[in-house]
Amino acid sequence: MTRLYGGVEAGGTKFVCAVGTGPNDIRAETRFPTTTPDETLGRAIDFFRDYQADLAGLGVASFGPVDPNPASPTFGYVTTTPKRGWPNTDVAGAFRRALGLPVAFDTDVNAAAVGEGRWGAAQGLDTFIYLTVGTGVGGGVVAGGRLVHGLIHPEVGHIRLPHDWQADPFPGICPYHGDCFEGLASGPALEARWKQRGDTLPADHPAWPLQAHYLALALVCFICTLSPQRLILGGGVMNQPHLFPLLRAEVQRLLNGYVQAPAVLDQIDQYIVPPALAGYAGVLGSMALAMDAAGK
Amino acid sequence: MTRLYGGVEAGGTKFVCAVGTGPNDIRAETRFPTTTPDETLGRAIDFFRDYQADLAGLGVASFGPVDPNPASPTFGYVTTTPKRGWPNTDVAGAFRRALGLPVAFDTDVNAAAVGEGRWGAAQGLDTFIYLTVGTGVGGGVVAGGRLVHGLIHPEVGHIRLPHDWQADPFPGICPYHGDCFEGLASGPALEARWKQRGDTLPADHPAWPLQAHYLALALVCFICTLSPQRLILGGGVMNQPHLFPLLRAEVQRLLNGYVQAPAVLDQIDQYIVPPALAGYAGVLGSMALAMDAAGK
Repeated sequence: MTRLYGGVEAGGTKFVCAVGTGPNDIRAETRFPTTTPDETLGRAIDFFRDYQADLAGLGVASFGPVDPNPASPTFGYVTTTPKRGWPNTDVAGAFRRALGLPVAFDTDVNAAAVGEGRWGAAQGLDTFIYLTVGTGVGGGVVAGGRLVHGLIHPEVGHIRLPHDWQADPFPGICPYHGDCFEGLASGPALEARWKQRGDTLPADHPAWPLQAHYLALALVCFICTLSPQRLILGGGVMNQPHLFPLLRAEVQRLLNGYVQAPAVLDQIDQYIVPPALAGYAGVLGSMALAMDAAGK
Repeated sequence: MTRLYGGVEAGGTKFVCAVGTGPNDIRAETRFPTTTPDETLGRAIDFFRDYQADLAGLGVASFGPVDPNPASPTFGYVTTTPKRGWPNTDVAGAFRRALGLPVAFDTDVNAAAVGEGRWGAAQGLDTFIYLTVGTGVGGGVVAGGRLVHGLIHPEVGHIRLPHDWQADPFPGICPYHGDCFEGLASGPALEARWKQRGDTLPADHPAWPLQAHYLALALVCFICTLSPQRLILGGGVMNQPHLFPLLRAEVQRLLNGYVQAPAVLDQIDQYIVPPALAGYAGVLGSMALAMDAAGK
Protein backbone atom coordinates (compact mmCIF):
# COMPACT_ATOMS: atom_id res chain seq x y z
CA MET A 1 0.00 0.00 0.00
CA THR A 2 1.00 3.64 -0.42
CA ARG A 3 2.99 4.98 2.47
CA LEU A 4 1.53 8.17 3.92
CA TYR A 5 3.20 11.34 5.14
CA GLY A 6 2.23 13.56 8.02
CA GLY A 7 2.34 17.34 7.92
CA VAL A 8 2.21 19.79 10.82
CA GLU A 9 1.66 23.47 10.30
CA ALA A 10 2.85 24.65 13.69
CA GLY A 11 1.61 28.22 13.80
CA GLY A 12 1.78 30.66 16.66
CA THR A 13 -2.03 30.81 16.77
CA LYS A 14 -3.14 27.39 15.55
CA PHE A 15 -1.78 23.98 14.62
CA VAL A 16 -2.98 22.16 11.50
CA CYS A 17 -2.13 18.47 11.16
CA ALA A 18 -2.82 16.25 8.17
CA VAL A 19 -2.02 12.80 6.83
CA GLY A 20 -1.92 11.92 3.14
CA THR A 21 0.20 11.98 0.00
CA GLY A 22 -0.70 15.37 -1.48
CA PRO A 23 -3.40 17.95 -2.14
CA ASN A 24 -5.76 15.44 -3.75
CA ASP A 25 -5.18 12.79 -1.15
CA ILE A 26 -5.62 14.18 2.36
CA ARG A 27 -6.75 11.18 4.44
CA ALA A 28 -7.31 13.04 7.69
CA GLU A 29 -6.93 16.52 9.06
CA THR A 30 -7.32 18.35 12.36
CA ARG A 31 -6.75 21.89 13.58
CA PHE A 32 -6.68 23.31 17.10
CA PRO A 33 -5.39 26.41 18.91
CA THR A 34 -1.76 26.72 19.99
CA THR A 35 -1.67 26.67 23.81
CA THR A 36 1.21 25.33 25.90
CA PRO A 37 3.89 23.22 24.21
CA ASP A 38 2.95 20.09 26.20
CA GLU A 39 -0.74 20.32 25.46
CA THR A 40 -0.35 21.39 21.82
CA LEU A 41 2.37 18.94 20.82
CA GLY A 42 0.57 16.18 22.77
CA ARG A 43 -2.61 16.78 20.85
CA ALA A 44 -0.76 16.69 17.53
CA ILE A 45 1.05 13.49 18.49
CA ASP A 46 -2.23 11.85 19.50
CA PHE A 47 -3.65 12.67 16.07
CA PHE A 48 -0.76 11.01 14.27
CA ARG A 49 -0.75 7.91 16.54
CA ASP A 50 -3.83 6.64 14.72
CA TYR A 51 -1.86 6.54 11.46
CA GLN A 52 1.53 5.61 12.86
CA ALA A 53 1.79 2.25 11.10
CA ASP A 54 1.15 3.83 7.69
CA LEU A 55 3.42 6.86 8.08
CA ALA A 56 6.78 6.97 6.31
CA GLY A 57 7.70 10.35 7.76
CA LEU A 58 6.54 13.62 9.21
CA GLY A 59 7.23 17.23 8.31
CA VAL A 60 6.87 20.24 10.58
CA ALA A 61 6.55 23.82 9.33
CA SER A 62 6.99 25.97 12.37
CA PHE A 63 6.54 29.53 13.52
CA GLY A 64 9.86 31.05 14.50
CA PRO A 65 12.52 31.83 15.07
CA VAL A 66 13.61 28.24 14.64
CA ASP A 67 16.82 26.29 14.19
CA PRO A 68 16.50 24.53 10.82
CA ASN A 69 20.12 23.30 10.65
CA PRO A 70 20.19 19.48 10.87
CA ALA A 71 23.82 19.62 12.03
CA SER A 72 23.01 21.81 15.03
CA PRO A 73 22.36 20.46 18.55
CA THR A 74 19.17 22.55 18.67
CA PHE A 75 17.89 21.45 15.24
CA GLY A 76 14.11 21.41 15.23
CA TYR A 77 13.74 23.82 18.13
CA VAL A 78 11.62 26.92 18.32
CA THR A 79 14.31 29.21 19.78
CA THR A 80 13.94 32.80 21.03
CA THR A 81 10.24 33.34 20.36
CA PRO A 82 8.39 35.89 22.53
CA LYS A 83 5.46 33.42 22.69
CA ARG A 84 5.06 32.45 26.35
CA GLY A 85 6.15 28.92 27.22
CA TRP A 86 7.66 28.24 23.82
CA PRO A 87 11.26 29.54 23.93
CA ASN A 88 13.75 26.68 23.42
CA THR A 89 11.12 24.03 22.69
CA ASP A 90 12.30 20.91 20.87
CA VAL A 91 9.34 20.63 18.50
CA ALA A 92 10.82 18.18 15.98
CA GLY A 93 12.30 16.04 18.77
CA ALA A 94 8.94 15.73 20.53
CA PHE A 95 7.42 14.18 17.40
CA ARG A 96 10.45 12.04 16.64
CA ARG A 97 10.60 10.56 20.12
CA ALA A 98 6.86 9.98 20.45
CA LEU A 99 6.27 8.54 17.00
CA GLY A 100 9.61 6.95 16.09
CA LEU A 101 9.51 8.57 12.65
CA PRO A 102 11.96 10.67 10.65
CA VAL A 103 10.94 14.30 11.15
CA ALA A 104 11.75 17.06 8.65
CA PHE A 105 11.58 20.56 10.05
CA ASP A 106 11.78 24.06 8.64
CA THR A 107 10.27 27.52 8.81
CA ASP A 108 6.66 28.02 7.74
CA VAL A 109 7.68 30.04 4.68
CA ASN A 110 10.33 27.53 3.61
CA ALA A 111 7.77 24.73 3.84
CA ALA A 112 5.25 26.76 1.84
CA ALA A 113 7.90 27.31 -0.85
CA VAL A 114 8.58 23.57 -1.04
CA GLY A 115 4.85 22.84 -1.23
CA GLU A 116 4.34 25.34 -4.05
CA GLY A 117 7.28 23.75 -5.85
CA ARG A 118 5.91 20.23 -5.54
CA TRP A 119 2.21 20.84 -6.13
CA GLY A 120 1.52 24.52 -6.64
CA ALA A 121 2.53 27.59 -8.59
CA ALA A 122 6.19 26.60 -8.99
CA GLN A 123 5.80 23.04 -10.28
CA GLY A 124 8.67 22.08 -12.56
CA LEU A 125 10.78 25.10 -11.62
CA ASP A 126 14.07 24.89 -9.78
CA THR A 127 14.67 28.52 -8.80
CA PHE A 128 11.87 30.61 -7.32
CA ILE A 129 10.81 32.60 -4.31
CA TYR A 130 7.70 32.32 -2.17
CA LEU A 131 6.90 35.56 -0.40
CA THR A 132 4.22 36.20 2.19
CA VAL A 133 3.13 39.76 2.92
CA GLY A 134 0.91 39.85 5.98
CA THR A 135 1.52 40.56 9.64
CA GLY A 136 5.18 40.26 8.73
CA VAL A 137 7.01 39.86 5.46
CA GLY A 138 8.92 36.62 4.95
CA GLY A 139 9.89 34.25 2.24
CA GLY A 140 11.33 30.93 1.22
CA VAL A 141 13.93 30.74 -1.52
CA VAL A 142 14.51 27.69 -3.70
CA ALA A 143 17.62 27.70 -5.92
CA GLY A 144 18.72 24.82 -8.12
CA GLY A 145 15.85 22.74 -6.74
CA ARG A 146 16.87 23.11 -3.11
CA LEU A 147 15.78 25.35 -0.27
CA VAL A 148 18.36 28.03 0.48
CA HIS A 149 19.47 27.96 4.11
CA GLY A 150 23.01 29.29 4.03
CA LEU A 151 24.08 30.85 7.30
CA ILE A 152 20.61 30.54 8.93
CA HIS A 153 17.83 31.19 6.43
CA PRO A 154 16.85 34.19 4.32
CA GLU A 155 15.08 37.10 5.98
CA VAL A 156 13.72 38.70 2.84
CA GLY A 157 11.46 41.08 4.75
CA HIS A 158 14.41 43.07 6.02
CA ILE A 159 16.08 44.34 2.85
CA ARG A 160 16.34 48.11 2.64
CA LEU A 161 14.31 49.87 -0.04
CA PRO A 162 14.46 53.34 -1.56
CA HIS A 163 12.05 55.45 0.52
CA ASP A 164 11.06 58.87 -0.74
CA TRP A 165 10.31 60.64 2.54
CA GLN A 166 8.64 63.56 0.76
CA ALA A 167 6.16 61.36 -1.09
CA ASP A 168 5.71 59.02 1.90
CA PRO A 169 6.71 60.53 5.27
CA PHE A 170 5.65 57.33 7.08
CA PRO A 171 8.77 56.25 9.04
CA GLY A 172 8.12 52.49 8.92
CA ILE A 173 7.39 50.15 11.82
CA CYS A 174 10.22 47.61 11.94
CA PRO A 175 11.65 47.73 15.47
CA TYR A 176 15.10 46.87 14.09
CA HIS A 177 15.26 48.87 10.87
CA GLY A 178 12.39 51.32 10.71
CA ASP A 179 11.74 51.59 6.99
CA CYS A 180 12.96 48.25 5.70
CA PHE A 181 10.65 46.24 3.37
CA GLU A 182 8.57 44.84 6.25
CA GLY A 183 8.63 48.21 8.01
CA LEU A 184 7.11 49.92 4.96
CA ALA A 185 4.93 47.27 3.36
CA SER A 186 3.60 44.72 5.87
CA GLY A 187 -0.09 44.67 6.79
CA PRO A 188 0.50 46.52 10.07
CA ALA A 189 2.60 49.14 8.19
CA LEU A 190 -0.23 49.68 5.73
CA GLU A 191 -2.69 50.09 8.58
CA ALA A 192 -0.42 52.43 10.56
CA ARG A 193 0.24 54.63 7.51
CA TRP A 194 -3.38 55.02 6.41
CA LYS A 195 -5.06 54.69 9.83
CA GLN A 196 -7.30 51.92 8.60
CA ARG A 197 -6.95 48.24 7.78
CA GLY A 198 -5.72 47.49 4.27
CA ASP A 199 -8.76 45.37 3.45
CA THR A 200 -11.04 48.36 4.11
CA LEU A 201 -9.20 50.66 1.67
CA PRO A 202 -11.00 51.04 -1.70
CA ALA A 203 -9.28 49.82 -4.86
CA ASP A 204 -8.71 53.38 -6.11
CA HIS A 205 -7.06 54.53 -2.86
CA PRO A 206 -3.51 55.95 -3.19
CA ALA A 207 -2.40 53.28 -0.73
CA TRP A 208 -2.29 50.69 -3.51
CA PRO A 209 0.08 52.29 -6.04
CA LEU A 210 2.43 53.04 -3.16
CA GLN A 211 2.14 49.47 -1.88
CA ALA A 212 2.78 48.16 -5.40
CA HIS A 213 5.82 50.42 -5.64
CA TYR A 214 7.44 49.06 -2.47
CA LEU A 215 6.59 45.48 -3.39
CA ALA A 216 8.05 46.04 -6.87
CA LEU A 217 11.27 47.51 -5.48
CA ALA A 218 11.66 44.37 -3.36
CA LEU A 219 10.85 42.03 -6.25
CA VAL A 220 13.43 43.81 -8.43
CA CYS A 221 15.98 43.13 -5.73
CA PHE A 222 15.04 39.44 -5.63
CA ILE A 223 14.99 39.20 -9.44
CA CYS A 224 18.47 40.73 -9.71
CA THR A 225 19.91 38.68 -6.86
CA LEU A 226 18.40 35.26 -7.63
CA SER A 227 17.19 35.34 -11.21
CA PRO A 228 14.08 33.40 -10.13
CA GLN A 229 11.95 31.62 -12.71
CA ARG A 230 8.82 32.75 -10.85
CA LEU A 231 7.80 34.86 -7.83
CA ILE A 232 4.85 33.67 -5.75
CA LEU A 233 3.23 36.21 -3.44
CA GLY A 234 0.79 35.25 -0.71
CA GLY A 235 -0.32 36.60 2.65
CA GLY A 236 -3.19 38.83 3.73
CA VAL A 237 -2.00 41.99 2.00
CA MET A 238 -1.94 40.21 -1.37
CA ASN A 239 -5.66 39.31 -1.09
CA GLN A 240 -6.49 42.38 -3.20
CA PRO A 241 -7.14 41.35 -6.79
CA HIS A 242 -6.22 44.83 -8.08
CA LEU A 243 -2.76 44.72 -6.49
CA PHE A 244 -1.15 42.14 -8.80
CA PRO A 245 -1.63 44.14 -12.05
CA LEU A 246 -0.24 47.29 -10.39
CA LEU A 247 2.70 45.33 -9.05
CA ARG A 248 3.55 43.63 -12.35
CA ALA A 249 3.48 46.93 -14.26
CA GLU A 250 5.67 48.58 -11.63
CA VAL A 251 8.24 45.75 -11.78
CA GLN A 252 8.46 46.18 -15.57
CA ARG A 253 8.78 49.95 -15.21
CA LEU A 254 11.60 49.62 -12.66
CA LEU A 255 13.53 46.94 -14.58
CA ASN A 256 13.19 49.10 -17.70
CA GLY A 257 13.95 46.29 -20.14
CA TYR A 258 17.22 45.33 -18.50
CA VAL A 259 16.35 41.68 -17.85
CA GLN A 260 15.86 40.41 -21.40
CA ALA A 261 13.70 37.38 -20.66
CA PRO A 262 10.26 36.72 -22.16
CA ALA A 263 9.01 35.80 -18.66
CA VAL A 264 9.60 39.39 -17.55
CA LEU A 265 8.96 41.24 -20.80
CA ASP A 266 5.93 39.43 -22.22
CA GLN A 267 4.56 36.92 -19.72
CA ILE A 268 4.72 38.76 -16.46
CA ASP A 269 1.17 37.60 -15.60
CA GLN A 270 2.66 34.13 -15.21
CA TYR A 271 5.88 35.40 -13.64
CA ILE A 272 4.48 37.17 -10.57
CA VAL A 273 1.60 35.10 -9.27
CA PRO A 274 -0.46 34.23 -6.18
CA PRO A 275 0.14 30.86 -4.49
CA ALA A 276 -1.82 27.85 -5.74
CA LEU A 277 -2.16 26.06 -2.40
CA ALA A 278 -3.56 29.09 -0.56
CA GLY A 279 -4.73 28.17 2.95
CA TYR A 280 -3.18 24.71 2.63
CA ALA A 281 0.33 25.97 1.90
CA GLY A 282 1.53 25.35 5.46
CA VAL A 283 0.27 21.85 6.05
CA LEU A 284 0.93 20.65 2.49
CA GLY A 285 4.33 22.33 2.61
CA SER A 286 5.22 20.42 5.77
CA MET A 287 4.10 17.19 4.09
CA ALA A 288 6.30 18.09 1.13
CA LEU A 289 9.26 18.62 3.48
CA ALA A 290 8.77 15.06 4.75
CA MET A 291 8.53 13.67 1.21
CA ASP A 292 11.64 15.60 0.11
CA ALA A 293 13.55 14.26 3.11
CA ALA A 294 12.48 10.72 2.20
CA GLY A 295 13.58 11.23 -1.40
CA LYS A 296 10.00 10.74 -2.64
CA MET B 1 49.05 10.37 -15.18
CA THR B 2 46.93 13.24 -13.86
CA ARG B 3 44.46 14.56 -16.40
CA LEU B 4 44.72 18.30 -16.93
CA TYR B 5 42.05 20.94 -17.36
CA GLY B 6 42.10 24.02 -19.53
CA GLY B 7 40.76 27.39 -18.49
CA VAL B 8 39.96 30.40 -20.65
CA GLU B 9 39.29 33.81 -19.20
CA ALA B 10 37.65 35.35 -22.25
CA GLY B 11 37.65 39.03 -21.40
CA GLY B 12 36.58 41.92 -23.55
CA THR B 13 40.12 43.33 -23.45
CA LYS B 14 42.32 40.27 -23.08
CA PHE B 15 42.21 36.48 -23.12
CA VAL B 16 44.07 34.43 -20.52
CA CYS B 17 44.48 30.70 -21.15
CA ALA B 18 45.98 28.16 -18.78
CA VAL B 19 46.42 24.42 -18.40
CA GLY B 20 46.78 22.65 -15.08
CA THR B 21 44.91 21.21 -12.12
CA GLY B 22 44.70 24.21 -9.77
CA PRO B 23 46.44 27.28 -8.36
CA ASN B 24 49.55 25.36 -7.34
CA ASP B 25 49.78 23.41 -10.56
CA ILE B 26 49.58 25.70 -13.59
CA ARG B 27 51.52 23.87 -16.30
CA ALA B 28 51.30 26.57 -18.95
CA GLU B 29 49.74 29.98 -19.39
CA THR B 30 49.37 32.59 -22.11
CA ARG B 31 47.66 35.95 -22.43
CA PHE B 32 46.94 38.10 -25.47
CA PRO B 33 44.63 40.96 -26.47
CA THR B 34 41.05 40.33 -27.61
CA THR B 35 40.84 41.22 -31.31
CA THR B 36 38.46 39.59 -33.81
CA PRO B 37 36.67 36.37 -32.81
CA ASP B 38 38.49 34.35 -35.50
CA GLU B 39 41.93 35.54 -34.55
CA THR B 40 41.38 35.47 -30.78
CA LEU B 41 39.66 32.10 -30.56
CA GLY B 42 42.16 30.67 -33.06
CA ARG B 43 45.06 31.77 -30.92
CA ALA B 44 43.49 30.25 -27.79
CA ILE B 45 42.78 26.99 -29.63
CA ASP B 46 46.37 26.82 -30.89
CA PHE B 47 47.60 27.17 -27.30
CA PHE B 48 45.48 24.24 -26.10
CA ARG B 49 46.39 21.99 -29.08
CA ASP B 50 49.83 21.38 -27.52
CA TYR B 51 48.12 19.84 -24.47
CA GLN B 52 45.16 18.24 -26.22
CA ALA B 53 46.13 14.65 -25.38
CA ASP B 54 46.35 15.43 -21.66
CA LEU B 55 43.21 17.56 -21.35
CA ALA B 56 40.07 16.11 -19.75
CA GLY B 57 38.01 19.23 -20.36
CA LEU B 58 37.96 22.96 -20.87
CA GLY B 59 36.17 25.79 -19.10
CA VAL B 60 35.43 29.22 -20.52
CA ALA B 61 34.62 32.28 -18.39
CA SER B 62 33.35 34.87 -20.80
CA PHE B 63 32.59 38.56 -20.99
CA GLY B 64 28.92 39.10 -21.69
CA PRO B 65 26.13 39.10 -22.16
CA VAL B 66 26.28 35.36 -22.70
CA ASP B 67 23.88 32.43 -22.90
CA PRO B 68 24.93 30.09 -20.07
CA ASN B 69 21.92 27.74 -20.39
CA PRO B 70 23.10 24.28 -21.57
CA ALA B 71 19.56 23.52 -22.81
CA SER B 72 19.48 26.53 -25.12
CA PRO B 73 20.39 26.40 -28.83
CA THR B 74 22.71 29.37 -28.28
CA PHE B 75 24.43 27.93 -25.19
CA GLY B 76 28.01 29.13 -25.02
CA TYR B 77 27.44 32.19 -27.19
CA VAL B 78 28.41 35.75 -26.50
CA THR B 79 25.06 37.32 -27.46
CA THR B 80 24.19 41.03 -27.75
CA THR B 81 27.53 42.57 -26.81
CA PRO B 82 28.36 46.04 -28.16
CA LYS B 83 31.93 44.78 -28.83
CA ARG B 84 32.48 44.95 -32.61
CA GLY B 85 32.55 41.61 -34.39
CA TRP B 86 31.50 39.63 -31.31
CA PRO B 87 27.68 39.67 -31.24
CA ASN B 88 26.28 36.13 -31.58
CA THR B 89 29.65 34.38 -31.44
CA ASP B 90 29.64 30.68 -30.53
CA VAL B 91 32.62 30.79 -28.19
CA ALA B 92 32.14 27.44 -26.43
CA GLY B 93 31.31 25.71 -29.73
CA ALA B 94 34.51 26.97 -31.37
CA PHE B 95 36.59 25.27 -28.66
CA ARG B 96 34.46 22.15 -28.62
CA ARG B 97 34.66 21.62 -32.36
CA ALA B 98 38.36 22.40 -32.67
CA LEU B 99 39.54 20.39 -29.68
CA GLY B 100 36.94 17.63 -29.34
CA LEU B 101 36.67 18.27 -25.59
CA PRO B 102 33.75 18.86 -23.24
CA VAL B 103 33.51 22.63 -22.75
CA ALA B 104 31.93 24.23 -19.67
CA PHE B 105 30.90 27.85 -20.11
CA ASP B 106 29.63 30.62 -17.88
CA THR B 107 29.92 34.30 -17.11
CA ASP B 108 33.21 35.66 -15.79
CA VAL B 109 31.71 36.39 -12.36
CA ASN B 110 30.09 32.96 -12.08
CA ALA B 111 33.40 31.31 -12.90
CA ALA B 112 35.20 33.47 -10.35
CA ALA B 113 32.65 32.42 -7.72
CA VAL B 114 33.24 28.75 -8.51
CA GLY B 115 37.01 29.25 -8.35
CA GLU B 116 36.79 30.99 -4.97
CA GLY B 117 34.61 28.13 -3.76
CA ARG B 118 37.05 25.44 -4.89
CA TRP B 119 40.39 27.04 -4.01
CA GLY B 120 39.84 30.51 -2.56
CA ALA B 121 37.97 32.47 0.08
CA ALA B 122 34.85 30.26 0.06
CA GLN B 123 36.44 26.84 0.41
CA GLY B 124 34.15 24.45 2.25
CA LEU B 125 31.13 26.77 2.03
CA ASP B 126 28.01 25.96 0.07
CA THR B 127 26.21 29.32 0.00
CA PHE B 128 28.10 32.51 -0.78
CA ILE B 129 28.32 35.43 -3.14
CA TYR B 130 31.26 36.73 -5.15
CA LEU B 131 30.89 40.39 -6.02
CA THR B 132 33.08 42.50 -8.25
CA VAL B 133 32.94 46.28 -8.00
CA GLY B 134 34.87 47.86 -10.83
CA THR B 135 33.92 49.23 -14.23
CA GLY B 136 30.59 47.54 -13.59
CA VAL B 137 29.12 45.75 -10.59
CA GLY B 138 28.38 42.05 -11.00
CA GLY B 139 28.34 38.89 -9.02
CA GLY B 140 28.13 35.14 -8.94
CA VAL B 141 25.86 33.42 -6.45
CA VAL B 142 26.41 29.90 -5.14
CA ALA B 143 23.57 28.34 -3.12
CA GLY B 144 23.55 24.81 -1.78
CA GLY B 145 26.89 24.19 -3.50
CA ARG B 146 25.65 25.11 -6.97
CA LEU B 147 25.82 28.24 -9.10
CA VAL B 148 22.49 30.02 -9.26
CA HIS B 149 21.31 30.51 -12.82
CA GLY B 150 17.52 30.54 -12.59
CA LEU B 151 15.86 32.45 -15.39
CA ILE B 152 19.17 33.71 -16.89
CA HIS B 153 21.69 34.58 -14.18
CA PRO B 154 21.73 37.09 -11.35
CA GLU B 155 22.39 40.74 -12.14
CA VAL B 156 23.27 41.85 -8.64
CA GLY B 157 24.55 45.24 -9.78
CA HIS B 158 21.07 46.39 -10.64
CA ILE B 159 19.23 46.22 -7.33
CA ARG B 160 17.74 49.52 -6.18
CA LEU B 161 19.21 51.10 -3.07
CA PRO B 162 18.02 53.84 -0.74
CA HIS B 163 19.49 57.07 -2.10
CA ASP B 164 19.36 60.20 0.01
CA TRP B 165 19.36 62.88 -2.68
CA GLN B 166 20.07 65.63 -0.15
CA ALA B 167 23.19 63.97 1.17
CA ASP B 168 24.26 62.74 -2.28
CA PRO B 169 22.68 64.64 -5.19
CA PHE B 170 24.65 62.53 -7.71
CA PRO B 171 21.99 61.03 -10.01
CA GLY B 172 23.80 57.77 -10.81
CA ILE B 173 25.13 56.61 -14.17
CA CYS B 174 23.29 53.40 -15.03
CA PRO B 175 21.76 53.93 -18.49
CA TYR B 176 18.83 51.68 -17.52
CA HIS B 177 18.17 52.63 -13.91
CA GLY B 178 20.10 55.78 -13.02
CA ASP B 179 20.78 55.30 -9.34
CA CYS B 180 20.78 51.51 -8.98
CA PHE B 181 23.71 49.86 -7.12
CA GLU B 182 26.01 49.98 -10.17
CA GLY B 183 24.77 53.47 -11.02
CA LEU B 184 25.78 54.76 -7.59
CA ALA B 185 28.77 52.65 -6.60
CA SER B 186 30.76 51.39 -9.62
CA GLY B 187 34.21 52.77 -10.37
CA PRO B 188 32.91 55.11 -13.10
CA ALA B 189 30.16 56.33 -10.73
CA LEU B 190 32.75 57.13 -8.08
CA GLU B 191 34.83 59.03 -10.64
CA ALA B 192 31.84 60.92 -12.05
CA ARG B 193 30.63 61.95 -8.58
CA TRP B 194 33.98 63.19 -7.25
CA LYS B 195 35.50 64.30 -10.58
CA GLN B 196 38.60 62.20 -10.01
CA ARG B 197 39.49 58.54 -10.14
CA GLY B 198 38.73 56.56 -7.00
CA ASP B 199 42.32 55.40 -6.61
CA THR B 200 43.46 59.04 -6.39
CA LEU B 201 41.09 59.91 -3.53
CA PRO B 202 42.80 59.99 -0.11
CA ALA B 203 41.72 57.52 2.56
CA ASP B 204 40.07 60.27 4.65
CA HIS B 205 38.00 61.60 1.72
CA PRO B 206 34.20 61.67 2.27
CA ALA B 207 33.90 59.47 -0.83
CA TRP B 208 34.77 56.40 1.21
CA PRO B 209 32.13 56.46 3.97
CA LEU B 210 29.53 57.09 1.26
CA GLN B 211 30.92 54.25 -0.87
CA ALA B 212 30.89 51.96 2.18
CA HIS B 213 27.28 52.97 2.85
CA TYR B 214 26.06 51.99 -0.63
CA LEU B 215 28.08 48.77 -0.60
CA ALA B 216 26.66 47.93 2.84
CA LEU B 217 23.07 48.57 1.73
CA ALA B 218 23.64 46.12 -1.12
CA LEU B 219 25.29 43.52 1.11
CA VAL B 220 22.37 43.76 3.57
CA CYS B 221 20.08 42.99 0.66
CA PHE B 222 22.15 39.95 -0.32
CA ILE B 223 22.46 38.79 3.30
CA CYS B 224 18.68 38.99 3.80
CA THR B 225 17.85 37.36 0.46
CA LEU B 226 20.43 34.54 0.40
CA SER B 227 21.72 34.11 3.95
CA PRO B 228 25.24 33.63 2.55
CA GLN B 229 27.94 32.04 4.69
CA ARG B 230 30.44 34.57 3.32
CA LEU B 231 30.59 37.57 0.96
CA ILE B 232 33.67 37.98 -1.23
CA LEU B 233 34.27 41.41 -2.75
CA GLY B 234 36.76 42.03 -5.52
CA GLY B 235 37.22 44.46 -8.39
CA GLY B 236 39.19 47.69 -8.75
CA VAL B 237 37.10 49.74 -6.33
CA MET B 238 37.77 47.26 -3.52
CA ASN B 239 41.54 47.72 -3.86
CA GLN B 240 41.44 50.25 -1.03
CA PRO B 241 42.55 48.63 2.21
CA HIS B 242 40.60 51.17 4.31
CA LEU B 243 37.29 50.34 2.60
CA PHE B 244 36.71 46.88 4.12
CA PRO B 245 36.66 48.05 7.78
CA LEU B 246 34.25 50.88 6.92
CA LEU B 247 32.04 48.47 5.01
CA ARG B 248 31.94 45.83 7.73
CA ALA B 249 31.01 48.38 10.40
CA GLU B 250 28.28 49.81 8.20
CA VAL B 251 26.78 46.36 7.52
CA GLN B 252 26.60 45.74 11.27
CA ARG B 253 25.06 49.15 11.86
CA LEU B 254 22.40 48.58 9.19
CA LEU B 255 21.53 45.02 10.28
CA ASN B 256 21.31 46.30 13.85
CA GLY B 257 21.59 42.87 15.47
CA TYR B 258 18.73 41.35 13.50
CA VAL B 259 20.72 38.47 11.99
CA GLN B 260 21.75 36.58 15.13
CA ALA B 261 24.74 34.71 13.74
CA PRO B 262 28.27 34.85 15.17
CA ALA B 263 29.61 35.30 11.61
CA VAL B 264 27.83 38.65 11.43
CA LEU B 265 27.97 39.74 15.06
CA ASP B 266 31.48 38.72 16.11
CA GLN B 267 33.49 37.51 13.11
CA ILE B 268 32.59 39.97 10.41
CA ASP B 269 36.30 40.28 9.44
CA GLN B 270 35.99 36.73 8.12
CA TYR B 271 32.48 37.24 6.79
CA ILE B 272 33.08 40.09 4.33
CA VAL B 273 36.42 39.45 2.67
CA PRO B 274 38.51 40.10 -0.45
CA PRO B 275 38.97 37.27 -2.96
CA ALA B 276 41.87 34.87 -2.44
CA LEU B 277 42.61 34.19 -6.11
CA ALA B 278 42.86 37.88 -7.06
CA GLY B 279 44.13 38.30 -10.63
CA TYR B 280 43.82 34.57 -11.28
CA ALA B 281 40.11 34.40 -10.40
CA GLY B 282 39.03 34.32 -14.04
CA VAL B 283 41.32 31.70 -15.45
CA LEU B 284 41.25 29.50 -12.34
CA GLY B 285 37.48 29.94 -12.18
CA SER B 286 37.14 28.70 -15.75
CA MET B 287 39.33 25.71 -14.90
CA ALA B 288 37.09 25.07 -11.89
CA LEU B 289 34.01 25.17 -14.16
CA ALA B 290 35.58 22.42 -16.27
CA MET B 291 36.41 20.33 -13.20
CA ASP B 292 32.90 20.80 -11.77
CA ALA B 293 31.41 19.71 -15.10
CA ALA B 294 33.62 16.61 -15.06
CA GLY B 295 32.58 15.80 -11.50
CA LYS B 296 36.19 16.20 -10.28
